[in-house]
Amino acid sequence: MEHVFRLTLSCPDRVGIVARVSNFLAQYNGTITEANQHADMKEGWFFLRNEIKAESLPFDIHTFREAFAPIARDMDMDWEVHDSATKRKVVIMASHDAHCLADLLNRWHAGDLDCDIPCVIANHDHLRSLVEWHGIPFHHVPVDPDQKADHFEQVEQIIIDHQADTVVLARYMQILPEAFCQRWSHRIINIHHSFLPSFVGAKPYHQAFERGVKLIGATCHYVTADLDAGPIIDQDVTRVSHRDDIQEMVRRGKDVERTVLARGLRWHLEDRVLVHGNKTVVFE
Amino acid sequence: MEHVFRLTLSCPDRVGIVARVSNFLAQYNGTITEANQHADMKEGWFFLRNEIKAESLPFDIHTFREAFAPIARDMDMDWEVHDSATKRKVVIMASHDAHCLADLLNRWHAGDLDCDIPCVIANHDHLRSLVEWHGIPFHHVPVDPDQKADHFEQVEQIIIDHQADTVVLARYMQILPEAFCQRWSHRIINIHHSFLPSFVGAKPYHQAFERGVKLIGATCHYVTADLDAGPIIDQDVTRVSHRDDIQEMVRRGKDVERTVLARGLRWHLEDRVLVHGNKTVVFE
Amino acid sequence: MEHVFRLTLSCPDRVGIVARVSNFLAQYNGTITEANQHADMKEGWFFLRNEIKAESLPFDIHTFREAFAPIARDMDMDWEVHDSATKRKVVIMASHDAHCLADLLNRWHAGDLDCDIPCVIANHDHLRSLVEWHGIPFHHVPVDPDQKADHFEQVEQIIIDHQADTVVLARYMQILPEAFCQRWSHRIINIHHSFLPSFVGAKPYHQAFERGVKLIGATCHYVTADLDAGPIIDQDVTRVSHRDDIQEMVRRGKDVERTVLARGLRWHLEDRVLVHGNKTVVFE
Amino acid sequence: MEHVFRLTLSCPDRVGIVARVSNFLAQYNGTITEANQHADMKEGWFFLRNEIKAESLPFDIHTFREAFAPIARDMDMDWEVHDSATKRKVVIMASHDAHCLADLLNRWHAGDLDCDIPCVIANHDHLRSLVEWHGIPFHHVPVDPDQKADHFEQVEQIIIDHQADTVVLARYMQILPEAFCQRWSHRIINIHHSFLPSFVGAKPYHQAFERGVKLIGATCHYVTADLDAGPIIDQDVTRVSHRDDIQEMVRRGKDVERTVLARGLRWHLEDRVLVHGNKTVVFE
Repeated sequence: MEHVFRLTLSCPDRVGIVARVSNFLAQYNGTITEANQHADMKEGWFFLRNEIKAESLPFDIHTFREAFAPIARDMDMDWEVHDSATKRKVVIMASHDAHCLADLLNRWHAGDLDCDIPCVIANHDHLRSLVEWHGIPFHHVPVDPDQKADHFEQVEQIIIDHQADTVVLARYMQILPEAFCQRWSHRIINIHHSFLPSFVGAKPYHQAFERGVKLIGATCHYVTADLDAGPIIDQDVTRVSHRDDIQEMVRRGKDVERTVLARGLRWHLEDRVLVHGNKTVVFE
Repeated sequence: MEHVFRLTLSCPDRVGIVARVSNFLAQYNGTITEANQHADMKEGWFFLRNEIKAESLPFDIHTFREAFAPIARDMDMDWEVHDSATKRKVVIMASHDAHCLADLLNRWHAGDLDCDIPCVIANHDHLRSLVEWHGIPFHHVPVDPDQKADHFEQVEQIIIDHQADTVVLARYMQILPEAFCQRWSHRIINIHHSFLPSFVGAKPYHQAFERGVKLIGATCHYVTADLDAGPIIDQDVTRVSHRDDIQEMVRRGKDVERTVLARGLRWHLEDRVLVHGNKTVVFE
Repeated sequence: MEHVFRLTLSCPDRVGIVARVSNFLAQYNGTITEANQHADMKEGWFFLRNEIKAESLPFDIHTFREAFAPIARDMDMDWEVHDSATKRKVVIMASHDAHCLADLLNRWHAGDLDCDIPCVIANHDHLRSLVEWHGIPFHHVPVDPDQKADHFEQVEQIIIDHQADTVVLARYMQILPEAFCQRWSHRIINIHHSFLPSFVGAKPYHQAFERGVKLIGATCHYVTADLDAGPIIDQDVTRVSHRDDIQEMVRRGKDVERTVLARGLRWHLEDRVLVHGNKTVVFE
Repeated sequence: MEHVFRLTLSCPDRVGIVARVSNFLAQYNGTITEANQHADMKEGWFFLRNEIKAESLPFDIHTFREAFAPIARDMDMDWEVHDSATKRKVVIMASHDAHCLADLLNRWHAGDLDCDIPCVIANHDHLRSLVEWHGIPFHHVPVDPDQKADHFEQVEQIIIDHQADTVVLARYMQILPEAFCQRWSHRIINIHHSFLPSFVGAKPYHQAFERGVKLIGATCHYVTADLDAGPIIDQDVTRVSHRDDIQEMVRRGKDVERTVLARGLRWHLEDRVLVHGNKTVVFE
């Protein structure tokens, strides 16, 4: 992994944005290792992502921020710059099913997910040893249907205590409170086990089976207060047939779920996902 | 193309169905060139498709029907047997867009669609020369929004006059009357330009664009009185991104639409699609 | 999982095979839960797979074998029948890379791979704790380049000691001796990290990168003495572009490798793979 | 279709290239509607493609060329700029099979391929009426196996007479002479009916069938003197099984061939394909 700074920005589209940004970087002799941009003509909005070799620049991330701020202000940019040497802290939340959690832990363990995982939170206890084998603390926070508010208060406190900046719902089957979603806007990633917007809500494989579809899918999206309706990061599908009962659909779907979730999270961690309204620009 | 009889049947599941059918065929020395079967455990229903080399049997399709009828009666079979030498007659209906129609005509012209196309019906006239170049009669039946009943009466009369047994809606954008759908049940094939059940109804690419999905698709299904809700024959998808505006989605979607429609129609023509309730068994 | 007997057979094609088999089953009131057959016209060879509900039959697997043997003899069948209650014993072999091994262990742990894993053998020791966490014995058998024969002798002895009937090479990077391959014919499954027959041999991702292909793949096949040339069970691909360096190709390829290996192994365990010459019939 | 200038360039990588280009455009108030860039770290080479709204610039394409030339010289750029209002002239060459040719003509007729097609050349005459129905001249240039040089001389003369800048081999089954390939370097696009580098040369579907692969594919590439070894523009695959004989593989493969060829040609026409060595950068 090369040491880079990742600059992402979006702003009203106009002439000269790229010139302004690239002059800024050239002036400090910054080597751009990857660059993406997109102009949304319909919305009149511009999006950019640059990776700059950290060692090519004469300053650290803080000075970068200060130096770039006037340009950003000038052009009404919504912007961020991240130092790849500072790993993101990702709390994973799970419930019964192990497949997405186990897959993320595997990838993390193999060095394929560039983040720290300060802890895993689950409303059941049986995944504890799997998590702890990876050297990651496990918090069991049960859900009492009559005291859901308590549950979410505890969960959020744990997230805060661990200074997480991203939360991944790895088949965590509870609906988050509206205020929770808003406080963590664009920082909670969910995997929904259908090709949204088909089969919103509970038991999507059952719905898919009943409708007789020939493909089933999964959708990775940012969580908003509107159930299963947040900005979509990635989706994929796999083929099914009349031979597949619900159990087999679930089994096949698992492979799609974990692939899509891992891909979406990876893009998020590499600052490749920019949100505008309820849609994403993904510079993969 | 080998000369075969295609036997398809479905019936309540029980022990001995295959034995009964295969004994019948073996008794007449019938060579099975392809065989598929499926037992739907949940519904307790059994499905079978056999292709038998015509020349291996001592009788023609009519005698086959008579000889097999007692077995079918005994086992409450819903069944058919087709002689591959008798081509199906398929009427294609179109509107503005040429891509699905042109694709079907191409395949037919290349010998890849085993059917006759007695005529094409369209509510606009501009595809006439394309159709006529293929040596196929073209009927222009305009739609007067205030006299839709007249339009459909004319259309159905043309279909009947041409003794069609299958109707393909190749992006024919009108909603068929309920009674029409019922009279031609499981014999009208439509291509819907979305991955159903997402984006039912009008302008699915616009809906897909608004939702920000990362895959768009198409669905080939039998038409029922319930709009876009009939038994699905086949579906497929293709990847899109933030770079694709609606026009580009439409362009990419066309490739999926015509591939899926051609595949669905081909399966239908080869008696590979068995309908049960609102779902299909496809012995591809 | 339902308790079934799985009957697979192949033999010279002729009239009446299905009748004979299905009569046999019907005579004992056997309920067929899944049936597949295939006639290879070019080779004149017939393939069949039946799943029969165990409890519907009046006898156990041994009596089944005795009762069916005369039919099989009569028709020159190459045949087997397995009791799904008797789990196959699968020894997994690995080397450096964890992804395929970890994936198989995950699936097995989740109950998605219907087999026993009596042990894992590796020529490096660092995957020990991963394996042992799953409660599976781990054998470290190093390779001395000058004493390869010793290595393979030890390995084969361990396999025999554990009474394995299947060996999976989960990115085990050694070439097996010819005699080893022959003794375990159609019982050793390998995952090759390319879309064979492209990029046979070492470093396929490097070869793919050099050639500038736009898709990379993986191939699951039975091992024969002929390197990377055995009967193919399954293959799949994923898209790459000019942006992907070798390291990224390796990362993307891993997802394909483990999906394809898991699928191939699952089909093998469910007796869905019939080998004829150097090709497979896969009744998925 | 918006009226744009398309600037493409490649050069040794160094700091400040983007700044230089974007300053140039900003200075003339040019609106960038699409921008792509890629730095090949291993080769130390930089690639860029910009689409600039023509009406936003104060000059035409000739003045653009003059104004940009000093920058290009300074930075050792291999570069081009095209006016989207000047359509490319594409000569299509065919042989027996109609599917790729018919597909390209369809797309062109539907306005989905932004080029002129001054003529079609074929070594057989039976596709004449298909071509002429589209209003395109058809040249029948037969191949005498003993006089191949004559054939290619005639073919090249026709291409020159029609002032073509691109030649598409739509399943034209002759091997072009080396000198021909060199004169038209990166301007002849071929569709090979396999997933290269598998099954180079003749009858790839037969080779695929013999090997028992589970996916077949097609490859769109620039023609070089080295048979089937030129820079790959695009590839795709489709699934096959033991049920598919060679004829069925051919039929399934056709769909892949035409999709891949149409996509590759479209990217070529939109200046999205940059060649470096024997590999392509595709800014799709």
